[in-house]
Amino acid sequence: MILSGGAGTRLWPLSREAAPKPFMPLPDGETLLGKTASRALALAGTDTLVTVTNRDYYFHTKDTYAGVAGSAFVYLLEPFGRNTAPAVALGALCAKARGMGERVLLVMPADHLIRDQDAFADAVARATELAQTGALVTFGIAPTHPETGFGYIECGPMIEPAEGRRPAAFRVRRFIEKPALATAREYLTAGHYVWNSGMFAFTADAIVDAFARHAPGVLAAVRPVAQALRDLSTSSMLEIDAALFAAVPDISIDYAIMERAAEAGEVAVVRGTFDWSDVGSWQAVAALCAPDDDGNGGQGERVAIATRGTYVHAADRVVATVGVENLVIVDTADAVLVAHRDHLQRVKDVVGELKARGHEAYRLHRTVSRPWGTYTVLEEAPGFKIKRIEVRPGAALSLQLHHRRSEHWVVVHGVARVTNGEREFDVLPNESTFIPLDTRHRLENRGAEPLVIIEVQCGDYLGEDDIVRFDDRYGRTPA
Amino acid sequence: MILSGGAGTRLWPLSREAAPKPFMPLPDGETLLGKTASRALALAGTDTLVTVTNRDYYFHTKDTYAGVAGSAFVYLLEPFGRNTAPAVALGALCAKARGMGERVLLVMPADHLIRDQDAFADAVARATELAQTGALVTFGIAPTHPETGFGYIECGPMIEPAEGRRPAAFRVRRFIEKPALATAREYLTAGHYVWNSGMFAFTADAIVDAFARHAPGVLAAVRPVAQALRDLSTSSMLEIDAALFAAVPDISIDYAIMERAAEAGEVAVVRGTFDWSDVGSWQAVAALCAPDDDGNGGQGERVAIATRGTYVHAADRVVATVGVENLVIVDTADAVLVAHRDHLQRVKDVVGELKARGHEAYRLHRTVSRPWGTYTVLEEAPGFKIKRIEVRPGAALSLQLHHRRSEHWVVVHGVARVTNGEREFDVLPNESTFIPLDTRHRLENRGAEPLVIIEVQCGDYLGEDDIVRFDDRYGRTPA
Repeated sequence: MILSGGAGTRLWPLSREAAPKPFMPLPDGETLLGKTASRALALAGTDTLVTVTNRDYYFHTKDTYAGVAGSAFVYLLEPFGRNTAPAVALGALCAKARGMGERVLLVMPADHLIRDQDAFADAVARATELAQTGALVTFGIAPTHPETGFGYIECGPMIEPAEGRRPAAFRVRRFIEKPALATAREYLTAGHYVWNSGMFAFTADAIVDAFARHAPGVLAAVRPVAQALRDLSTSSMLEIDAALFAAVPDISIDYAIMERAAEAGEVAVVRGTFDWSDVGSWQAVAALCAPDDDGNGGQGERVAIATRGTYVHAADRVVATVGVENLVIVDTADAVLVAHRDHLQRVKDVVGELKARGHEAYRLHRTVSRPWGTYTVLEEAPGFKIKRIEVRPGAALSLQLHHRRSEHWVVVHGVARVTNGEREFDVLPNESTFIPLDTRHRLENRGAEPLVIIEVQCGDYLGEDDIVRFDDRYGRTPA
Repeated sequence: MILSGGAGTRLWPLSREAAPKPFMPLPDGETLLGKTASRALALAGTDTLVTVTNRDYYFHTKDTYAGVAGSAFVYLLEPFGRNTAPAVALGALCAKARGMGERVLLVMPADHLIRDQDAFADAVARATELAQTGALVTFGIAPTHPETGFGYIECGPMIEPAEGRRPAAFRVRRFIEKPALATAREYLTAGHYVWNSGMFAFTADAIVDAFARHAPGVLAAVRPVAQALRDLSTSSMLEIDAALFAAVPDISIDYAIMERAAEAGEVAVVRGTFDWSDVGSWQAVAALCAPDDDGNGGQGERVAIATRGTYVHAADRVVATVGVENLVIVDTADAVLVAHRDHLQRVKDVVGELKARGHEAYRLHRTVSRPWGTYTVLEEAPGFKIKRIEVRPGAALSLQLHHRRSEHWVVVHGVARVTNGEREFDVLPNESTFIPLDTRHRLENRGAEPLVIIEVQCGDYLGEDDIVRFDDRYGRTPA
């Protein structure tokens, strides 16, 4: 079960509200969400991947999984966030409805990075054994430095392993919130404190029982949400009702269940020996690149003169640095960030400021994902707007019309099946068609290659909301 | 006489080889060249503006002067640079050929900034009086700090002013090259040393006589160049012959004439009381903006979090800074510079590095000037290229064809007169036309409004050199 939320505002401008941290491309080109799914599916015994995410990220999530092999995918789509406890409860109720109440649910945030798959699999195997005995199991990470940004777990007595080679497990004595630095130092030297990784394992039955004991109010609010889910036991896409979900408490699984269950001696912690990062800031992303002799790293076309300790993410432009030290520079199509490594936590303040100004760079990238592919605004000026539109093989935009703009389409790659008024025809590369104002039209890719068209819109109003949809494969027509 | 040369590599990425420092837009939107021309033409008695520049900058220079009122413009176009002495000699010979040998030539570099026009006019008036007596006059600037980046002039005895209110003038004792810091400090306290501004005033007769006395070799090499200029005494556009010019020594007016003439007691210096900057680096550009309370300044969409002393030039993108100090950040369509204020002299090393890599960002902006207007590459990918083309009222591209690409033109502003094969017709906004491969075509703007078209090129090769020109208003057809 993947919990895919979190804005990742400290990772702006690569992370945006409409394409947050789990979707952000890492230096290796993969995303945290894709890596998390691969990690889960590589485990022995995984047969269903449940993803809880905002409904706006449904198509983007499916696209991300397109490159991930195997398994059944289930999507639990939230209209808005209600923190982790309701998400976990819904996932568990869904598992029970599918007759998998005794199966172990492994809960993983979508935006963590773990590279040692073997050590991770060992920890999961140990956690699964414990979960099968009815325990609620969490994963602790041995601290490497006195981090004040994570919660900690104090370990109690060791639980003897069934097999000698598996990672050690302990009773959880207590969960501890983010500590002050002095306390974090004590934890580091004490040895029996671990970072709380935010991952869990338990059977669906056990966690629902724990909800009944420790957070009956949350369970009572979540049950009608689950009951209202159409085809709960069979559908791969479950849309959560907004009115019912609004009545659910906004609370984390740690607060609602784990802290109280720990007091009752019901929680175990497996001490993971794998590397683990929550990729909380640009510092963590920069750490993924091996630095050169001057401590510089990054990607794209870079020129570094008298530069040290600087991470540069260059996209389409050259980024040149002269006489600077310890900076993180991130260049994207519509925004540039220049930040000092010691102040990367404050990158989120940029997002706040942009939001306050009503600037859309906090929300959107210049390339916007759609169920059928992507569009990129290449230029916008009074009277016209130019887009590059990419349509996936087999996909189609909705049948639509615009009242205020006409459109010129030039096909530059693939073959477009075009509906233009009453006519339907193919447009080949280096051919074009003109969609007049108020004319029903549709763009479709029936080929095996991606379709790329350049669209020049002309009109007195060019907002995305000038659209009347008649038919849409992705359910975007008004009811 | 404006000497318009100089790459301005320390002002990359706003200054490029194809659009160097004199053309760079300043924070107020004007260019140094435009300001220099305005400054010259605002002086009483200016009747001809001679500009010496590279022939590649001819159209760009004319465009820059389009907003500048009055006077006759003469262009002396060099095939390559030969420093200032040959340029001044040619300008003087040109003046003599036009019967203006006794008139005063005011020589000004195109890339200096002077804001106090009244004080400047006073200094020029005083210099003109002295020049009319046959003196070679230079302009000194009272130093404000021990600058090691300028040459100095040691002043000798004062020359009594004709009118009491005019700036003081002195005999020049000697010219001094860029000094060491200790020496510069001595000059500053001594009081009779001034910065050499690089501006001069003399009659054409006097400077040609001085060449004959002090640099007869230069004059001997320049004379045939002048004699070969077609319509030297009448034409406004004088193209220098490359073969003859190659034989001319590459030498500055300071070395060739001024230093020797000073020894002979022939040079006077007017002590300018105006502000003066050679805009030698980003530090000087940043100084043109009044900083806010945190010492930050700049232009465009900026977000500054915990930022001090930082100058940001933002163009189309948001530029956000977090926790940084004393940086200069310049964002352009195809390149970003992040430099520390203490290392701005090394920005030129970026240009060197880009040149070594064969990257065109040292040479071209994404928007490229042409005699008829501009084009901007919006996107380029295998198989297609998208340009926005702007054509000035009354201007036309050449009649041309391409062997490897066809073109889709969509008019988004103004009216296009299009020649497409055998047909000639108007294309209105929101209309398009298709230019097939190997078809003669021409784009022309006969209207009063700028014409803007979006061009989508399709083909297997999209280089600018796939062009056959049949007819061109700007002399770009092969002879």
